[in-house]
Amino acid sequence: MANSFKKIGLWGRLSDPKVASPASQIGAHLRARGLEVFRSGSDAAQQGLDEVPYLTESELARRVDLLVAIGGDGTMLHAARAVAGRGVPLLGVNRGRLGFLTDISPEQMLDAIDDILGGDYLSEERHMLEAQIVGQRGRSDTMFALNDVVLQQGGTGHLLDFVTTVDGSYVNTHGGDGLIVATPTGSTAYALSCGGPIIQPNVDAFVMVPICPHTLSDRPLVLQTSSLIEVQVQDDENAPAHVSCDGEELGKVTANDVLRIKAARETITLLHPTDYNYYDLLRSKLNWGRANRNGPGTRTH
Amino acid sequence: MANSFKKIGLWGRLSDPKVASPASQIGAHLRARGLEVFRSGSDAAQQGLDEVPYLTESELARRVDLLVAIGGDGTMLHAARAVAGRGVPLLGVNRGRLGFLTDISPEQMLDAIDDILGGDYLSEERHMLEAQIVGQRGRSDTMFALNDVVLQQGGTGHLLDFVTTVDGSYVNTHGGDGLIVATPTGSTAYALSCGGPIIQPNVDAFVMVPICPHTLSDRPLVLQTSSLIEVQVQDDENAPAHVSCDGEELGKVTANDVLRIKAARETITLLHPTDYNYYDLLRSKLNWGRANRNGPGTRTH
Amino acid sequence: MANSFKKIGLWGRLSDPKVASPASQIGAHLRARGLEVFRSGSDAAQQGLDEVPYLTESELARRVDLLVAIGGDGTMLHAARAVAGRGVPLLGVNRGRLGFLTDISPEQMLDAIDDILGGDYLSEERHMLEAQIVGQRGRSDTMFALNDVVLQQGGTGHLLDFVTTVDGSYVNTHGGDGLIVATPTGSTAYALSCGGPIIQPNVDAFVMVPICPHTLSDRPLVLQTSSLIEVQVQDDENAPAHVSCDGEELGKVTANDVLRIKAARETITLLHPTDYNYYDLLRSKLNWGRANRNGPGTRTH
Amino acid sequence: MANSFKKIGLWGRLSDPKVASPASQIGAHLRARGLEVFRSGSDAAQQGLDEVPYLTESELARRVDLLVAIGGDGTMLHAARAVAGRGVPLLGVNRGRLGFLTDISPEQMLDAIDDILGGDYLSEERHMLEAQIVGQRGRSDTMFALNDVVLQQGGTGHLLDFVTTVDGSYVNTHGGDGLIVATPTGSTAYALSCGGPIIQPNVDAFVMVPICPHTLSDRPLVLQTSSLIEVQVQDDENAPAHVSCDGEELGKVTANDVLRIKAARETITLLHPTDYNYYDLLRSKLNWGRANRNGPGTRTH
Repeated sequence: MANSFKKIGLWGRLSDPKVASPASQIGAHLRARGLEVFRSGSDAAQQGLDEVPYLTESELARRVDLLVAIGGDGTMLHAARAVAGRGVPLLGVNRGRLGFLTDISPEQMLDAIDDILGGDYLSEERHMLEAQIVGQRGRSDTMFALNDVVLQQGGTGHLLDFVTTVDGSYVNTHGGDGLIVATPTGSTAYALSCGGPIIQPNVDAFVMVPICPHTLSDRPLVLQTSSLIEVQVQDDENAPAHVSCDGEELGKVTANDVLRIKAARETITLLHPTDYNYYDLLRSKLNWGRANRNGPGTRTH
Repeated sequence: MANSFKKIGLWGRLSDPKVASPASQIGAHLRARGLEVFRSGSDAAQQGLDEVPYLTESELARRVDLLVAIGGDGTMLHAARAVAGRGVPLLGVNRGRLGFLTDISPEQMLDAIDDILGGDYLSEERHMLEAQIVGQRGRSDTMFALNDVVLQQGGTGHLLDFVTTVDGSYVNTHGGDGLIVATPTGSTAYALSCGGPIIQPNVDAFVMVPICPHTLSDRPLVLQTSSLIEVQVQDDENAPAHVSCDGEELGKVTANDVLRIKAARETITLLHPTDYNYYDLLRSKLNWGRANRNGPGTRTH
Repeated sequence: MANSFKKIGLWGRLSDPKVASPASQIGAHLRARGLEVFRSGSDAAQQGLDEVPYLTESELARRVDLLVAIGGDGTMLHAARAVAGRGVPLLGVNRGRLGFLTDISPEQMLDAIDDILGGDYLSEERHMLEAQIVGQRGRSDTMFALNDVVLQQGGTGHLLDFVTTVDGSYVNTHGGDGLIVATPTGSTAYALSCGGPIIQPNVDAFVMVPICPHTLSDRPLVLQTSSLIEVQVQDDENAPAHVSCDGEELGKVTANDVLRIKAARETITLLHPTDYNYYDLLRSKLNWGRANRNGPGTRTH
Repeated sequence: MANSFKKIGLWGRLSDPKVASPASQIGAHLRARGLEVFRSGSDAAQQGLDEVPYLTESELARRVDLLVAIGGDGTMLHAARAVAGRGVPLLGVNRGRLGFLTDISPEQMLDAIDDILGGDYLSEERHMLEAQIVGQRGRSDTMFALNDVVLQQGGTGHLLDFVTTVDGSYVNTHGGDGLIVATPTGSTAYALSCGGPIIQPNVDAFVMVPICPHTLSDRPLVLQTSSLIEVQVQDDENAPAHVSCDGEELGKVTANDVLRIKAARETITLLHPTDYNYYDLLRSKLNWGRANRNGPGTRTH
């Protein structure tokens, strides 16, 4: 599979020098190898990027056959939504701090890219969610999410009451701050803060995590990816609830709307160096390791 | 599929009149329909059961083509391990309190059985785990678990340190009270008390739940059912750790042993009445429902 | 102490017939005993309340020597803030569902009131919090809270970063959905949904509970009531954060503001029937009781 | 208060060279200052300790006016129980890793000791618990605990059912793995792993934390230190339950016994360097600090 990538996109907040600098290095490196390189940001902060042609995000997603996202996991999530359904694989380069998705460090990025161009990489499919708000007056856009779809009360401090169904079966009437539906990718993000489990990326499941539920037995529920999840707010007395996909607002929902969430047909392909290891990543990000104790078996944190 | 069940076993603590009484009713009902009926307990508490021949548990599992377990979920777990690998479906009758597995009430049991004999039922496959302790001096028996395999320190109050691997990859070095590996069936049992998620039975996954982990980021991990989980105690200074399958002791492990846990090839078939609904069961068992509040949107439990 | 209460206020959403009806009964009962009765709502839904003079909330709080709040705990919280600092004790009557604060049922309300007028009651002091936002352009009002002061991001789905100090000592830099500072009274409300402990009302402490914290070791912290808690938002890039007291908005905070929370000098006096028992209330509200199991010691929820 | 400490004990596992080496340094340093020094261990691993006279633990606790514990928090807990009631203050030196109680590092130990001998230190009282098992056949010894008293099922994997009362009032019937009663000191130890809050040491409270409770609303309960907590196991069908104090076995309890837990009259005095800061310790031990994120406000752990 060597040399299958000919047109490569650079994606990130190129107006930020900490992003533009590695982007510029990668750009020069790829051009030196005779490859076509494009970039997403019109306002690049780095001189070296001047020679890399600028495309709009949607053009870029259409034109390239590999996208290198530089930044944090947020940058990667944004890139994933842009290339969803286009079959363009993604590579994530962090700016010095390991991310769950941006697992390549600046130090190893040029070597990693050479390996990948040489066909030497791990390729991994990740599920995405798609969400839509269906109301009396029509339907919202459908938005993709690689991490999660979040329904949330708008900061009023008041309980949001909402009903969930899965494949048309009534599940529960929840009271609380809202609901997260997360992919395995998103299981280590917001859902984890709300008591959700870590789901290994190759598990064919989503998780529905209530946010600060009133009822203490209202626990995270792991569902098949074939499930259609529908959520309906019970009462919009206290301002409308918000729906976001990977942190980007999809819209507001009132008591007459249904929020529909299901697996997107489109998946995302992530490329990793061959020494990539999911558990290494978990241990590093979650400070796992040998238990941190003093006495012999004494329970003193 | 009507009339496919000809030989039916009655399973439970028949020495307990609360179990023997419904068992006796079911026995009489089935015999009146001309079916062959056997029972598991030699010391049945009820006269009506005298006419139902007694078989040992293993004979019973071999001879019948349907097993009716009467009692609580513990009875059902025991029955499941007995018929595992024999293709004998299970039906669970509770003694007045709904169970996750014993979902048929005494009131509806005769009707439910008639429906099932008439071919009118839902059939559901459930995964089981199998566990084995592999040590320097050999291997323990392999034991099945429909709910969970549990590694636990022996009540010493001291931290148990242990290492987990999945498919040979190092996952984590844990310190705490132990580890649960649960099926979706077991996700609503002990694992739920330890912070694990609820996993819908049709999800192809297990969950590995640390028990009271020292490190607060040591969270439940959902894995594919194809995973081989290996656990090794680090240090047996503080008495050996115990391993149990559905609450039944498999053995003790020391620092030289490996506990191997994987999906059993054998699955269990549960039969349910046609109006069975998993979410109804969850709501009933977990006291879900409309949030229990007083004021309009005030957060006062 | 018999007959010390001469002027009694009726407090609640009197426009709601479910509140007006018991209020009317109580009003007639008290007037028949020759006591002066006032009410808070100008738009009472019940004829019988016509004869009960209407006062504004602040007038009512000033004029009466006992306030009977009818409704849910939200009503009681509102009443508590109104009488804070005036020494007027509060009695809570629910409308059919037990509340943590409205612990008198409609059935027992007249007897309970007679007992209380006869001097036969339990009296309990509860701490309140007071919160103020101190910014470059001045200070907000000081607001009381019987349950909790809540800092919360405004439904954007983005992390709120904030710093906490206690008595001037730096505690932590938190990332998450926000922070709750709760009294023992509020420990069974929103704070409980966020992982906080239950604090018995007579404990001289507050609890600071992070809402969905990014860092899993960022756990609830129990503090002396003499503590001054200060919170400063790190970054207001993502819309301002909101502060509310018992669900009522105090104001918005930006990165230049300090939210100050401490014990109010004023306490609230709650009156209870003599058979009041805090643990009965807990058991009833939290569905505690004998563990709900099937088999003998089997862990199957 | 300078020079009030004349006789100083060295406490720790002196058979371990990692403990004996700093102990030897401290011993030489104190003797050079003309102070009397004793040690607890008869089998010291270090030559330098030969000149330091050996006393039994109880003699040592009786003879010295300052005890320097060297090791981990487990060593300190043990020392605390030994000097409880004798008014001997404790100083904790760790062997390279900061402990909650052993907050002085080997590097700073000699300076810290000089400061303390010069009267320059912070002194802090900590509450202890005392526990006793009262049965039909008599009473167990009373044991002190600086961290916690733990009731635990003996590794059978079966639910332990037990009833709790506080000051004679019935609180709850629990099912689960057991119960922890922790002091503020112990709130950061085992109790934290079981979902308990962190309690600042100066708060006048204990916390009762159920271990892996069957009922999800069975949450930690913070109580006044004046409370008498009594626990009674419901059923000893499944082997007896164990009680331990700071990890040391007090005894076994059956259904006929009552476990009584209350504040010990005796407190422990901890000495700290003047730059000691409780929050610094928390942040260090719990990996608190600036939230570990990549994108601007994106929730990706």
